[in-house]
Amino acid sequence: MASRGHNHLVIMAGGVGSRFWPMSTPECPKQFIDVLGTGRTFIQMTVDRFRGVVEPENVWVVTSQRYADIVRQQLPEVPASNVLLEPCRRNTAPCIAYVAWRIKSMDPKANLVVAPSDHIVTDREEFRRVVTDALDFTQQGDAIVTLGMKPTRPETGYGYIQADLSSPSLRNKSVFRVDSFKEKPDLKLAQQYIRRKEYFWNSGIFVWNVNTIVNSLRIYAPEISEIFEKLLPIYGTPQEQERINVEFPKCKNISIDYAILEKADEIFVMPADFGWSDLGTWGSLITLANKDAQGNAVVGQNVSLYDTNGCMVHTTEERRVVIQGLKNCIVAEKDNTLLICQLSEEQRIKDWMEA
Amino acid sequence: MASRGHNHLVIMAGGVGSRFWPMSTPECPKQFIDVLGTGRTFIQMTVDRFRGVVEPENVWVVTSQRYADIVRQQLPEVPASNVLLEPCRRNTAPCIAYVAWRIKSMDPKANLVVAPSDHIVTDREEFRRVVTDALDFTQQGDAIVTLGMKPTRPETGYGYIQADLSSPSLRNKSVFRVDSFKEKPDLKLAQQYIRRKEYFWNSGIFVWNVNTIVNSLRIYAPEISEIFEKLLPIYGTPQEQERINVEFPKCKNISIDYAILEKADEIFVMPADFGWSDLGTWGSLITLANKDAQGNAVVGQNVSLYDTNGCMVHTTEERRVVIQGLKNCIVAEKDNTLLICQLSEEQRIKDWMEA
Repeated sequence: MASRGHNHLVIMAGGVGSRFWPMSTPECPKQFIDVLGTGRTFIQMTVDRFRGVVEPENVWVVTSQRYADIVRQQLPEVPASNVLLEPCRRNTAPCIAYVAWRIKSMDPKANLVVAPSDHIVTDREEFRRVVTDALDFTQQGDAIVTLGMKPTRPETGYGYIQADLSSPSLRNKSVFRVDSFKEKPDLKLAQQYIRRKEYFWNSGIFVWNVNTIVNSLRIYAPEISEIFEKLLPIYGTPQEQERINVEFPKCKNISIDYAILEKADEIFVMPADFGWSDLGTWGSLITLANKDAQGNAVVGQNVSLYDTNGCMVHTTEERRVVIQGLKNCIVAEKDNTLLICQLSEEQRIKDWMEA
Repeated sequence: MASRGHNHLVIMAGGVGSRFWPMSTPECPKQFIDVLGTGRTFIQMTVDRFRGVVEPENVWVVTSQRYADIVRQQLPEVPASNVLLEPCRRNTAPCIAYVAWRIKSMDPKANLVVAPSDHIVTDREEFRRVVTDALDFTQQGDAIVTLGMKPTRPETGYGYIQADLSSPSLRNKSVFRVDSFKEKPDLKLAQQYIRRKEYFWNSGIFVWNVNTIVNSLRIYAPEISEIFEKLLPIYGTPQEQERINVEFPKCKNISIDYAILEKADEIFVMPADFGWSDLGTWGSLITLANKDAQGNAVVGQNVSLYDTNGCMVHTTEERRVVIQGLKNCIVAEKDNTLLICQLSEEQRIKDWMEA
């Protein structure tokens, strides 16, 4: 068993999620919203599901400076010094490099789960079992473990991981080497993928120990790694933010997938099935949400529906909403914005938001 | 010509208009709303169209106490002492009795137009011509003149006036005796009415001089008339409101139509055509409003429509609204309420409001 005291959770929470506008806005994006109406926001649910796996003082959040107050407010149990603030957006590689060096400065034996802040997991118990198993694996050696989701449909909205199922790890028979990472496929390709057993959805959740991370960075992204290694003396001091504000923008804008995962040798996938969803669209949200007998998913305290089917209604608590005669529509409102559109046209939302 | 100095306008503004919910609410009903997005509310447009016919100091508003502040704010040109406040709702007969005795106490030669506060008139010039003609008629004698609108469709939402076209008044050939008042008909009856020339829509606009009013009240509604005649000594004094609060609730709840118009002898109708509408429904509103090429009527500063036809959108100024894929719907929002429904189902709005 992994020693829980060295387990760390890194939540990447810098996204500006535009697909759920107007519920999600640049001022308060998706990860900070109670999308499903459960009483907990996405980032809160993310922390919740690691309870018992990672101690609260080992939870780290990397986010944009503009979201600092929201994070502190929504996650009071996370120490303020564990909320790392990016002065600008540089994709995931600089984000992970910063937090990895920062954690290493405090806990050289740290073992990390890196996770997005806005995903859904419905089977929390199975999730904990899988993550604990993966942490156990990475604690014992130099490995990057990605969690691969067993696909249930030819989804074109996710990337895929191709596993080499022929040779499971000797240390853990449910861990396999990655053959390749696949970009989001078109429908035809996705259909081919799901017919074969070795393809899994890329959940964006990685498990590795801190030495594996910094060594990988030194090899594959040395110019990024140097920036954060150089700052070792000032981590945890009052100068940290000031120096980060100067140094962070110098980083190349690159994802951890391109910078490391697709290049490194010790890349593994642990297939899993814990009701995962990267809720990227209103359509996927309505699939997961509780629905009434007419197939409507409603978030809001005072919503009355008449002659209405297959609609997704998302409104703020205090608002009274009466809807009659709508079919397969999105009705979402927040602050001073109201959106009504057909679910089938939701890919246009981003354009409307920017119009 | 009538002497303009004795012309008075009485605006009845006590209605709580529930058919336009949520745009119209008991806190701020229809007459105080800029329904058409012109920058003027219904009651303001009502005053506007009498400009040049009635002096501002002769404009009277009878409304509920709860709307006193709204009236003063929307009609700053009307003297505060001309805003008469009903302590409770008693229909139109007590309302008109109060204001008639009140005006008579100041101007025994007063000549009055009594008008609702929430109607539409599109041809203001013709309106002024007709009203001036009617005032001229009632100044010269004991007559109650109703304005009868030439019907353009078999409307079942209006009452009708049957005129005796065979004998125009000797004093004014465009004024006729009323044969009878007709309640809102069903469609079949309405179709019969409009095939015959002697039926007109009852606009609810009456013209009569103040002595005709008080004499009619004394004859046909003596118990109401006495209440307000008794108060003659205190009109215009600081005691007025206090006494009205005590006496007004004693009045019978009855409309001026039942109390007087249907009983009196000297009842006339002046047929007219000045683009009148008693905008009782969203459907009639969309008929009158300016529409885009897709037949949408939009009130709101920041509304974007895509693939949307025949819709009525009414929103507050500061709100951003994006609508895609709606047909023949009402989208209305105000304060913390949002209504979306099919135009064909608008008769259910009142139920939803009360639900």
